[in-house]
Amino acid sequence: MAGCAIGVDLGGTRIKAGVIDRTGRIHSRVELATEASKGRKQIIANIAAAADEARRVAKLPWSRVRAVGLGTPGGAKPETGAIWGSPNMHCLEGKPLAAPVAARLGLSEDGITLENDANVAAYAESWIGAGRDVKNLVLFTLGTGVGGGIVLNNEIWRGAWGAAAELGHQVIYPDGALCGCGNYGCLEAHASATGVVRRFREAVESGKRSVLARKVKTGERITARDISSAARKGDRLSARIMEETGRMLGIAVTNMLHILNVECVVFAGGMTAAGTLLLRPIREEARKRTMKYSMRGVKILFSRLGNDAGLIGAAGWALRLARTNRTSGNRG
Amino acid sequence: MAGCAIGVDLGGTRIKAGVIDRTGRIHSRVELATEASKGRKQIIANIAAAADEARRVAKLPWSRVRAVGLGTPGGAKPETGAIWGSPNMHCLEGKPLAAPVAARLGLSEDGITLENDANVAAYAESWIGAGRDVKNLVLFTLGTGVGGGIVLNNEIWRGAWGAAAELGHQVIYPDGALCGCGNYGCLEAHASATGVVRRFREAVESGKRSVLARKVKTGERITARDISSAARKGDRLSARIMEETGRMLGIAVTNMLHILNVECVVFAGGMTAAGTLLLRPIREEARKRTMKYSMRGVKILFSRLGNDAGLIGAAGWALRLARTNRTSGNRG
Repeated sequence: MAGCAIGVDLGGTRIKAGVIDRTGRIHSRVELATEASKGRKQIIANIAAAADEARRVAKLPWSRVRAVGLGTPGGAKPETGAIWGSPNMHCLEGKPLAAPVAARLGLSEDGITLENDANVAAYAESWIGAGRDVKNLVLFTLGTGVGGGIVLNNEIWRGAWGAAAELGHQVIYPDGALCGCGNYGCLEAHASATGVVRRFREAVESGKRSVLARKVKTGERITARDISSAARKGDRLSARIMEETGRMLGIAVTNMLHILNVECVVFAGGMTAAGTLLLRPIREEARKRTMKYSMRGVKILFSRLGNDAGLIGAAGWALRLARTNRTSGNRG
Repeated sequence: MAGCAIGVDLGGTRIKAGVIDRTGRIHSRVELATEASKGRKQIIANIAAAADEARRVAKLPWSRVRAVGLGTPGGAKPETGAIWGSPNMHCLEGKPLAAPVAARLGLSEDGITLENDANVAAYAESWIGAGRDVKNLVLFTLGTGVGGGIVLNNEIWRGAWGAAAELGHQVIYPDGALCGCGNYGCLEAHASATGVVRRFREAVESGKRSVLARKVKTGERITARDISSAARKGDRLSARIMEETGRMLGIAVTNMLHILNVECVVFAGGMTAAGTLLLRPIREEARKRTMKYSMRGVKILFSRLGNDAGLIGAAGWALRLARTNRTSGNRG
């Protein structure tokens, strides 16, 4: 177990942690409640507890922990060890996070590598996941919103101040739906789980038939998962909505290939449960719209690492930076 | 004149060359006809002649030429020293270019740094131009088409195989106009000079009034420059077309800021002659659509180096690679 790191994936409700070796193998995996409602100190204590527990389960002495990586929702500022723009954890906003966690674990102040969770997930997929044989990869995370991560030359592209890879906020319909960010027609407004449910509801309200129509009309909660599951059972409206969603995502793939010329585009998150209902139209639309020489050999895939991508990536990225004696990636 | 390089900008009709020192200062500037119709050998001879003439004018002995950079239309393959996808110079397609030019100049086979012209122009703007104080920059070149270049961490981002920065082929209207690339709704199809003229013609044909309407109706040639010039003289349709063009480009700026988090976006090419008629709506639309934390401090500017960007960038990029002992940039 030489060269191991602890990876921590901080979520709004759960904290996952694990010990990962330099080949990406997971030696332990633990989960704790985030207890976000109890405030910043409790979250910090829980992150430290999860990391230490992962280490204990893997029987790894601290002396042999090479790096600790923490994947966080929202943006990460390695300079100050703080996070920002994380809607579910306002109490952490702009305040030091890496340093107090490090202190609790007895590590030096810069002992923890902080990075956005989608960025580290992209790194994980490029390291040992769907894009393990390429150097350049884009990951889209499909959830309540649409997030993303960009890996260029085997490194996370953070941008000038860590705000890169807001892939859900590329405009695909200039006069489209209002997005949570205030802009109109963002990919996220149309192709996130929230966007999918909204478009489905609108279709039902405009008179389209579906096995889920009753639920919409009685105001019951429906999810993107309900829609993809209905689509797989043959519900035509659901299938059409998933197909259109795939085409929107395919447009975004074309944009990424033309702008960045990456070899691999990966999709992750709950909506990938729709399987080929989603993947086929993504691939078709991307192939139709992308110039031949930008498309050749490009792989468009679903995540290989699933829910483990966050902790594997947090650990892997921390290991990579440790190897090159840096505490953060490019900062522009 | 320590550390000088020769920069050559290969165009479809003219070859520009100059001696540039390591501060970006131009010590000589010469121009020759490309004579593309005379075929590959003549083009190669003319490139070499231009480079040597620039050297001679600057009174620089070959022993003190640190590097030679060649900016080319279409994609450049540093691995093979060939170019591809250059519509005006089919005779060069896929055949060695750098090596025979180097041979004519008595340089070693890898003595010439080949790079796409928009990529080196972007490098020039980030080096000593509009973005000289930033590390990350995107350049849009507005001409018959819309091209571009991306500079990340002071280096050209070429992508996995040199196909990156096809910024004109990001989709801004999924159901929009057919683009030359075969896709629908590309930025280029709507906001290039060609796209602007097409949209203007369509507006006149649908009955809109303009001082240029007669020309459209009699089938006379009009250019984007005619339209921007009419706009500046108060022609309302022309002004509206330029304004809409600016808004389209502003959408593309938003995409670049959200995807890449660069500090500076620069526009170059003939259409920038429209001045604030174009720049104001670009800025307004980008500000309206971009998330606050992706927008802070971002500069949206017109090119500072104009027509010299190509040769300055070709020389500067060759100098940079020579300094780091590389013959090409990232190749993924």
